[in-house]
Amino acid sequence: MNRVINHPDLVVEDMLKGIVAAHPELQATPDNPRVIKRSCAPVAGKVGIVTGGGSGHEPAFLGYVGENLVDAVAVGEIFSSPTAKSFFDAMKAADGGQGVACLYGNYAGDNMNVKMAIKMAERAGMTVRTVVANDDVPSAPKGDEAKRRGVAGEILMWKTAGACAALGGSLDEVIAVAQKTIDRTRSIGIGLSSCVIPAAGKANFHIEDGKMEVGIGHHGEPGTNVADTVSAEQMAKIMVGTVLPDLPFGRGDRVAVLISGLGATPLMEQYILYSGVEKALSEAGVTVAVPLVGNFFTSLEMMGVTLSVLQLDEELEKLITHPCASIGFNRK
Amino acid sequence: MNRVINHPDLVVEDMLKGIVAAHPELQATPDNPRVIKRSCAPVAGKVGIVTGGGSGHEPAFLGYVGENLVDAVAVGEIFSSPTAKSFFDAMKAADGGQGVACLYGNYAGDNMNVKMAIKMAERAGMTVRTVVANDDVPSAPKGDEAKRRGVAGEILMWKTAGACAALGGSLDEVIAVAQKTIDRTRSIGIGLSSCVIPAAGKANFHIEDGKMEVGIGHHGEPGTNVADTVSAEQMAKIMVGTVLPDLPFGRGDRVAVLISGLGATPLMEQYILYSGVEKALSEAGVTVAVPLVGNFFTSLEMMGVTLSVLQLDEELEKLITHPCASIGFNRK
Repeated sequence: MNRVINHPDLVVEDMLKGIVAAHPELQATPDNPRVIKRSCAPVAGKVGIVTGGGSGHEPAFLGYVGENLVDAVAVGEIFSSPTAKSFFDAMKAADGGQGVACLYGNYAGDNMNVKMAIKMAERAGMTVRTVVANDDVPSAPKGDEAKRRGVAGEILMWKTAGACAALGGSLDEVIAVAQKTIDRTRSIGIGLSSCVIPAAGKANFHIEDGKMEVGIGHHGEPGTNVADTVSAEQMAKIMVGTVLPDLPFGRGDRVAVLISGLGATPLMEQYILYSGVEKALSEAGVTVAVPLVGNFFTSLEMMGVTLSVLQLDEELEKLITHPCASIGFNRK
Repeated sequence: MNRVINHPDLVVEDMLKGIVAAHPELQATPDNPRVIKRSCAPVAGKVGIVTGGGSGHEPAFLGYVGENLVDAVAVGEIFSSPTAKSFFDAMKAADGGQGVACLYGNYAGDNMNVKMAIKMAERAGMTVRTVVANDDVPSAPKGDEAKRRGVAGEILMWKTAGACAALGGSLDEVIAVAQKTIDRTRSIGIGLSSCVIPAAGKANFHIEDGKMEVGIGHHGEPGTNVADTVSAEQMAKIMVGTVLPDLPFGRGDRVAVLISGLGATPLMEQYILYSGVEKALSEAGVTVAVPLVGNFFTSLEMMGVTLSVLQLDEELEKLITHPCASIGFNRK
């Protein structure tokens, strides 16, 4: 695998050097280079928004630090949780005196480290509350939602909660918006090829030519089944057919749709999939009010796509269409 | 190669369906689905900006149709020029009565079809002038610049000319800005893997593991040499060492730097390269005033990167930092 790196063990350090060099609106915190914050954070009087996760998903997570979005992010090694210390330092960097909402994904490492970080934050006199994203339908059966992973639906949660905080929402209000967003979001991924972690040097799983892994996770976690590849329109039907009944979404719903490439899938194909998704939703009586298509949440150079659908209400539609600016998400 | 498509021969049609469904601010023209225009185009009293090129480079070219950017784009098959008719229809769609600037890349097919389109436009009483991008240094030696290909530097030309037109510039002024931009831009690409055109079903060239193609074109055109892969920092030195002496750039210059991934190269690696590029420029006394990093101009799922450097003056710096909004380029 030919890569643009200096040393496999230094990819995160070297990426962060590039990020802060290219983006004066972002900074590493002085005492912890694994925390990236808005240069203006903490914003006094505003609820702080924090997230964090493994690297290799760019623009997630650090690409959502920005205006009306996330204030500070804890940065982990590739596909690995940030440390408790980094989560804690991110909380400090985001704390403008009105409390901090830590909005992250449901993975064992992140759960453990956020829990420890909150203890550190409490000892420091801070108020931190959390919402744990679990939008990935195929990762556990209905009724067992607490076991589901968080995937690209996290972005929708950061978006609405970030807007709520920017508009002066209290910690209670921000947490309620984040929880409502993730409660009303359902996601699914389809993997078409593997990826190689630089330090490992080879893929830790394999998808054959002509096969697709339905329900794959962002780190190559196995899906519900391996099937023969189908057309984009059929993929759209499978994906929409998985997420709609799970909530369930219903006729007359207005939704936000987020399609993300997993890394190597061309933008062309993401739009081909969107066309099929919109058709399948329309046939189910569901209207796409907010379409989002692009590399929002990737897995290095994996091929494949994810679909996240958020059931909007008046409040969420207002928040999701609020202006924002960051590496990964811009809206006028 | 596992793909998200319906039929290899219909990828462009199907992509365009998805694009217009997801972006109400964009439309296909009523009589030619291969022309995408701003829904508000033509804008009366504004010079129209047109471009066009083959598909498979997304977000180029259609992702630069937007506010303060391009008004209409002619869309070709994958890696193939749009027809003369599509270029002409794009010119009509962009013509707000002050003339049209057609700003495209130096490829035989595009040159021929734009030439024919201009004849059609003249017969229709329109005023169209062109600037042909030739920013790719490795594609022809110095002194033979007219033979060089246009690559990602085109984006910088669309950006400055689009801003100039939006600010009320005349056709003469817009053309002068576009020409100055491309005259002061130099680019180079490094290829790390090939890509597969869906209708062909297999790669039409090959890059071995451990090798890189220095000076590769956006369609896999051979570079100046195939070398052993090196570190990102060494790649940055090779790229900066190629573009700087060619203009030449000098100590004290302020520049815009555009690093684009070719498709499958993770954003992480693009920022690692940026860090090296900024260092190499800094050592040469060149200051990056405007850094741009991301998948701006791709080649399906090719791995690799391109670097474009634009020598700014006061006018160009003002225009390149002017706000804009589109699929591929957003600036507040």
